[in-house]
Amino acid sequence: MAHALRLARRGLGNVWPNPAVGCVLLREGRVVGRGWTQPGGRPHAERMALDAAGSLARGATAYVTLEPCAHHGRTPPCASGMVQAGVTRVVTALTDPDPRVAGRGHAMLRAAGVALTEGVMAAQASELQAGFLLRITQGRPFVTLKLASSLDGRIAMASGESRWITGPAARAHVHALRAQHDAIMVGGATARADLPQLNVRGINTPLQPVRIVVSDQALPALAPQGPDHGPLWRVSGEPARIMADLAGRGITRVFCEGGGRLAASLLVAGLVDQLIGYTAGLALGAEARPFLGPTGWTHLAEAPRFALAETRAIGPDLFHRWRRV
Amino acid sequence: MAHALRLARRGLGNVWPNPAVGCVLLREGRVVGRGWTQPGGRPHAERMALDAAGSLARGATAYVTLEPCAHHGRTPPCASGMVQAGVTRVVTALTDPDPRVAGRGHAMLRAAGVALTEGVMAAQASELQAGFLLRITQGRPFVTLKLASSLDGRIAMASGESRWITGPAARAHVHALRAQHDAIMVGGATARADLPQLNVRGINTPLQPVRIVVSDQALPALAPQGPDHGPLWRVSGEPARIMADLAGRGITRVFCEGGGRLAASLLVAGLVDQLIGYTAGLALGAEARPFLGPTGWTHLAEAPRFALAETRAIGPDLFHRWRRV
Repeated sequence: MAHALRLARRGLGNVWPNPAVGCVLLREGRVVGRGWTQPGGRPHAERMALDAAGSLARGATAYVTLEPCAHHGRTPPCASGMVQAGVTRVVTALTDPDPRVAGRGHAMLRAAGVALTEGVMAAQASELQAGFLLRITQGRPFVTLKLASSLDGRIAMASGESRWITGPAARAHVHALRAQHDAIMVGGATARADLPQLNVRGINTPLQPVRIVVSDQALPALAPQGPDHGPLWRVSGEPARIMADLAGRGITRVFCEGGGRLAASLLVAGLVDQLIGYTAGLALGAEARPFLGPTGWTHLAEAPRFALAETRAIGPDLFHRWRRV
Repeated sequence: MAHALRLARRGLGNVWPNPAVGCVLLREGRVVGRGWTQPGGRPHAERMALDAAGSLARGATAYVTLEPCAHHGRTPPCASGMVQAGVTRVVTALTDPDPRVAGRGHAMLRAAGVALTEGVMAAQASELQAGFLLRITQGRPFVTLKLASSLDGRIAMASGESRWITGPAARAHVHALRAQHDAIMVGGATARADLPQLNVRGINTPLQPVRIVVSDQALPALAPQGPDHGPLWRVSGEPARIMADLAGRGITRVFCEGGGRLAASLLVAGLVDQLIGYTAGLALGAEARPFLGPTGWTHLAEAPRFALAETRAIGPDLFHRWRRV
């Protein structure tokens, strides 16, 4: 299952509105097929693994990070595909909460006499597939908030000078993270001040993320959609409504890069699931611009707490990742 | 030498104005004596190790983190003590820059026919003994600046509420660090607002640190000096002059815990050698109080850069340590 989860990770950011699933077929202790949800969401991981295995799928065990689908869409359901290929045992991490599946995939396998084990590495699978699960169960995407700042939480001098606080290794890492999200989000003030590219550069990605600008005013002249730039969506209104709207359009993972007002509004609305910090080894002082705007909180207890998931050096900078408690 | 450095560390914070030195005596592959500078600075590490070894010091090799002293003070010089004890080989990390030693200890050993190797693990020894070295060579102590804050660099809500941003494990860690410094320094506003204890609690320490308040006004009623509280010194004036004065009084390691104005003045004066951060997993917003006051810098290039030396979790908080580049 750990292998299947590593494969699933490849789909993050390029399979929405579908889940990023991984599948490994094992027969007599040997891997005979591997699959992961392909860019755009098709083929599914199970289909890819079955095709790779061919006749070797007969008698194999399938490890899948999510319940195989049971509904006829553009392709036959994966659960029946497994049965037809002669898979005799299936191990899954999670039940698919999508009402079109919701246990029917598992039931289809059991009815065909396939041995089924559920719930293996469920916590890891839930974390990896949090975007899809939140979209289905809560009608909102998974939101990562990026904080790249000085040790005292500043993103620019009072003059606006900000090149460069963090180093090239951290900036390259940001592009890898952008690629794992369906959409990049910034506030209108940031879009107007920086005219940001909001795309993935320096690494190959099968799908450029959607560019989302939160603003109730007309957008500045950002790059048109094309091979290097995803669609550009302007959204506005109350944060929870924006997120519900994005989930309705299929977005499962949002990477918010500021500015300070948008970051504060998402934190205040309780919509931030993950914080990613890049902290440079310098402090700028109270005149410099903070990465977080006013929150309106008067008591410490109002601020949501996050648990440290990871910390290490990236180039000269401190990288730290936190998940909502 | 690594062993000797670990022993030397035990003296940090309790041997000023002396250096914290470690010494290991090895004979035929076995440790026959270990020593480290004792609280208050005497006995020296070499004397302690020689006394522990007794007659087993004859023919032994001594590993010492600093050149043995050559001057007659309250006790005979360590270099001649080694010769008298029959030590046949000495390995040192650094030459002692103290003008009363400055190579004379090494020369005394060589003249007595002792085999001498210098410069072993010199970088590590310089880092560990930086306080003593700076006091002798630059006439100022080593300064650590502590930053305990939220992810956005805030230390309290606008109302002043600050209990608790970081957790008990981080707060206990602060006491261990205080014990490794000769003095704890805060600004006058912090002293008046918080009436801080400025002592080491929860762990045994042979010597409570000196309490230094930077203020040109009279001090509030802080605890009198006693078994649980070090001497209380009020200092004022220009930061570099304050540090020169402290070095003159024998202080080698200062642990500055704020407030924001003092922290900024030390950074601006280029007097911070080490930054220690404890970052809690929450962000408070732009209304909350920053840990760093105004610096007056208008360009990024003015801010001194620090290199990440260490990062890990301490309880729920992120611990990070930086050294001046």
